[in-house]
Amino acid sequence: MTHRIRALPLFAVLLAATSFATTAADESPLDADAVARAEALRDRALAGSGAYAIVEDLTTRVGPRLAGTEADARGVEWAIAKFKELGYDKVWTEPVSFPVWERGFEAARVIRPVPQSFAIAALGGSVGTPEEGLRGEVVKFADYAALLEGTREQVEGKIVYIGNRMQRARDGSGYGTAVRARSAGASRAAALGAQAILIRSIGTAANSRTPHTGMLSYDIAFRKIPGAALSNPDADLLENMLARGEPVEIELRMGSGIRDEYTSRNVIAEVTGRDDSGKVVLIGGHLDSWDLGTGALDDGAGVAITMAAGKLIADLPRAQRPRHTVRVVAWANEEQGVYGGKAYADAHKDAVADHLLGFESDFGAGRVWRFDTRVAEAALPMMDAIGAVLAPLGIERGGNEAYGGADVGPMRALGMPVASLVQDGTTYFDYHHTANDTLDKVDAKDLDQNVAAYVTLTYLIAEHGLPPAPQ
Amino acid sequence: MTHRIRALPLFAVLLAATSFATTAADESPLDADAVARAEALRDRALAGSGAYAIVEDLTTRVGPRLAGTEADARGVEWAIAKFKELGYDKVWTEPVSFPVWERGFEAARVIRPVPQSFAIAALGGSVGTPEEGLRGEVVKFADYAALLEGTREQVEGKIVYIGNRMQRARDGSGYGTAVRARSAGASRAAALGAQAILIRSIGTAANSRTPHTGMLSYDIAFRKIPGAALSNPDADLLENMLARGEPVEIELRMGSGIRDEYTSRNVIAEVTGRDDSGKVVLIGGHLDSWDLGTGALDDGAGVAITMAAGKLIADLPRAQRPRHTVRVVAWANEEQGVYGGKAYADAHKDAVADHLLGFESDFGAGRVWRFDTRVAEAALPMMDAIGAVLAPLGIERGGNEAYGGADVGPMRALGMPVASLVQDGTTYFDYHHTANDTLDKVDAKDLDQNVAAYVTLTYLIAEHGLPPAPQ
Repeated sequence: MTHRIRALPLFAVLLAATSFATTAADESPLDADAVARAEALRDRALAGSGAYAIVEDLTTRVGPRLAGTEADARGVEWAIAKFKELGYDKVWTEPVSFPVWERGFEAARVIRPVPQSFAIAALGGSVGTPEEGLRGEVVKFADYAALLEGTREQVEGKIVYIGNRMQRARDGSGYGTAVRARSAGASRAAALGAQAILIRSIGTAANSRTPHTGMLSYDIAFRKIPGAALSNPDADLLENMLARGEPVEIELRMGSGIRDEYTSRNVIAEVTGRDDSGKVVLIGGHLDSWDLGTGALDDGAGVAITMAAGKLIADLPRAQRPRHTVRVVAWANEEQGVYGGKAYADAHKDAVADHLLGFESDFGAGRVWRFDTRVAEAALPMMDAIGAVLAPLGIERGGNEAYGGADVGPMRALGMPVASLVQDGTTYFDYHHTANDTLDKVDAKDLDQNVAAYVTLTYLIAEHGLPPAPQ
Repeated sequence: MTHRIRALPLFAVLLAATSFATTAADESPLDADAVARAEALRDRALAGSGAYAIVEDLTTRVGPRLAGTEADARGVEWAIAKFKELGYDKVWTEPVSFPVWERGFEAARVIRPVPQSFAIAALGGSVGTPEEGLRGEVVKFADYAALLEGTREQVEGKIVYIGNRMQRARDGSGYGTAVRARSAGASRAAALGAQAILIRSIGTAANSRTPHTGMLSYDIAFRKIPGAALSNPDADLLENMLARGEPVEIELRMGSGIRDEYTSRNVIAEVTGRDDSGKVVLIGGHLDSWDLGTGALDDGAGVAITMAAGKLIADLPRAQRPRHTVRVVAWANEEQGVYGGKAYADAHKDAVADHLLGFESDFGAGRVWRFDTRVAEAALPMMDAIGAVLAPLGIERGGNEAYGGADVGPMRALGMPVASLVQDGTTYFDYHHTANDTLDKVDAKDLDQNVAAYVTLTYLIAEHGLPPAPQ
C-alpha cells in the first residue's frame, strides 16, 4: 500500500483540498471522495449511532460478565447475535482458555478496639481465607514504596494495609502509580510474613462505599495471601482508628479462589471490504467485565462504540465500502490477564502484515479528545490528515507513541501499527471495577462522538491502507 | 418572662442599637451585652467549634448505631462520656423502650428473563421472606398514586415495584411526596394481594448503587409483606428489563423482622444557667442511626453541632452564663418512630412551660440558610432581632411555621415553642439512609457555621427567655 494520493486525478486532489485545512492540497495522502464519505459517516454517527442501545442491551440482557461464569457464555451468545443483527458480513468465534477465578463471599470486620464492618472487595485472582476467617492486627504503610521499606519485624503475622490515594486526571495517569499496591502488594507483604493485605481502593471515588476490585499478581517466590480493597470511606475509617494509636485487629473472611479451566471465545465479526483483500482494520472492546457492576463503562461502552462504528460501514452500499475489511472483536477475558488479546495474537501471528491498524475502546464512555498513533514515519502524513477529519469532533492530534489498548497489545508487540482515540477519563476511575459501573454513567451523545471518531479512522484506514514501514 | 428590654437602662438600649441594624434602638427586645456575647460565641464557633472532632469520634468509636443493637448501648456510653469530657454540668439518661428490628441478610435476583442480581436494602420494620425466599413476577407502578389505582387482578401474587424518583431540592421538599411509596406502599400492595414490594430508593443518588433504607408502616388491616428498596441504578435496570415487555420474575430473600423489646436511653446534659431558674432551652440531635452507613450525616452531625454549641456556653465564666439552662439531648431511636422524642415528652409533659424553645439538628451537615420559628406573636420581634445576629452567617429570616425537628415534635404538640435552623439539604438525600452516610460527607467549616447558628440562638433565648404567649 502506497500513498493513495499519487494515483489520484487532479480534480480529486483539488476536492480533497477543500476538505481539510492542515494539509496542503498537493500533499494530501487522502482521497477526497473518501474524506467526504468519512465525513458523512462521522456526521451520521453524531446524529445517532445506536451505540447507547447496544450497551443498554448488553447490561440488561447479560449484566455482569465475569470471565468463566455462565454470564460469560451468555455474553458470547449475545455478541454473536448482535453482530448478525447489525448486518455484519461474517461472524465467528475463536477459543480463549484461562483459569476461572471466583469471588465467593467476602467480609471484613474490626474486632478491636470496637466492632465495625468494612465494605471490601476481594482482588481478582486472590486466594481466600480459611473458612473461619483470619484475624490480625493491622500495620499501615502510606504507599507501596513504604511497604518496600517495611521489615519482617513490623509485618510478621499482621494484616498489611496500604493507604495510597489515586489522583484524578483526564488521561487516567494516576492509575499507573497507584495500582502497584494492588498488583504487587500481596506478595511483597507475604515476603515479610503478612497474613493478608488490604488496600485503599485504586479509584478516585473518595466519597463512595464501593470498593474497586481488579487483579493482583502473585510472585511465585512467596506464599499467596488474600488481598482485598476497602472503599475509600472505609479506608478513611480504618485510618481514623489507627490514628488513635491503639491496636486495630481485623477479621477477614473471603471465599475467593481459582477453580477450573474454562474456554470462552473471542467473538469476531467483519464488514468485508470491496476488494476483499485479506487486509483488515482491527477494532473492538472487551466483552468480559468484573462482577460487581454491569460493566457498562468497562467495557460495554467499548464493545458498543466499535460495534456501532462497524455497523455504519456495513450499512454502506457495497460499492461504497472501503477497499479493505473492518474486523471488530468482542474480546474475551481482558480483565484477568488479556487472555483474549493473547489468544488472538497466537492465532493470527502469521497474518500480522494483514493488520493495517489496530485500536481498542476500553476507557469508559467519555468523549474522545486526542488521537495518538504508533505507526511508521511514512504513515504520519496520512495520520495527520485523518487528524484533520477528526478535529471537528474536538479531537486534537497527539503523538506517535500510542498504547492502542490492552487487547491489541500482543499484536502490537508483533509489529501491528496501532492508534488510540483517547477518551476523557476524568470520572472513569470513580466507577472503574466497582458496583457503580452501571448504565446510568453512560451518555448517549458522548457515545455517538466516540463512534464518529471510530468510524472516521476505521473507514479512512480501511480505504487507504497504511503506507508500509521501511524495511 | 417578659420583654427584657423593658427593664434595661438607656445605655444598654443604645448599645444594643449598635449591634443590629434591622431593629430600631428603642424597640430592641435584646440586651446589648447579651448580643455582644452571642456575637463573640458565634465568632468563636466559626473559628473552630470542635464539632467535626465529635462526629469523627462518634463514627470511629461507635459507627453505625441501629436502635436496639450493641452499638446503641455503646453510643449511649459514648455520649455520656463525651458530654462530661466537654464540661457539661449535669449528664443523665432517661429510658426509651421500643421493639427491636433486625435487618438480617437480604438479596434479590432476577430469575427471568436472565439472571442478574440487584442491590437492595430491606425497609426498616419490614418482615422477612420465608427462609427459602419468595418468587414472583414484577408489576410496575409509576408512583404511589398509580398503585392506589391498581387492581387485584393486576397485583395478586406478584411483587409490586414502584418507580417514582425523588426530586432534588435545597429544602428537601421532594422527600414528602416520594416517601409515601416507602411508608405506605407495602400495605397498599398487600391489600391487592401482592407477595412483596420493591421501591426505587427514596433518595437523589441517581448514580449510586447504594439503596436507601428507612421505615415502612404497616396498616394492621392487611397482611404484612416484605418491603425493600432498590438502588437507583438497579431500579433503572429493572425498568429496562420491564420495558422489553417480557415477564420479569424475581426471587427475594430477606431475614429481617421484629425481635424483642429493648430499652435504650435519651442522653441528656445541661449547662446550668446562672439563675438556675428551672427553665431550659432544648436542643439536640438523635444518637441512633441506620445500620448501613456510620450515620455521620444522620445524625452524627446534629449530635456534634448541638454538643459543640452547648460546650461553647459551658466554657463561659459562670457569671457570663445565660440566665436559663441549656439542655442538650442525644435522642434515642428517632429513626424507627421518634421513640426518644415521645419518651421525653411523656416524662416532661408537666414541665412544658419550662421549655423556652426547642430545636433539633437533623438534616445533615450542610450550612444553615434559614431561620424559622413557631412562637407566639409576642415573641416575633425578639426572634427577628435574633435573626439579625444570625444574618452575618448567611442565614435569612424565614416564617413562623417551623417544624423544629422530629424529636421535639411531641413537646411542640404539647405547646413548646420551636425553631428551625434550616440546613442546605441539596445533597443530603444522596446519602440519607444509605451505606454512603459516612464521615467524608462532613465538612468541618460547614459544621462550624452550624454551631455558630446554634450557639447564637441558644444563648440569646437562654439569656432572655421568650415573651409568653397571650392567655
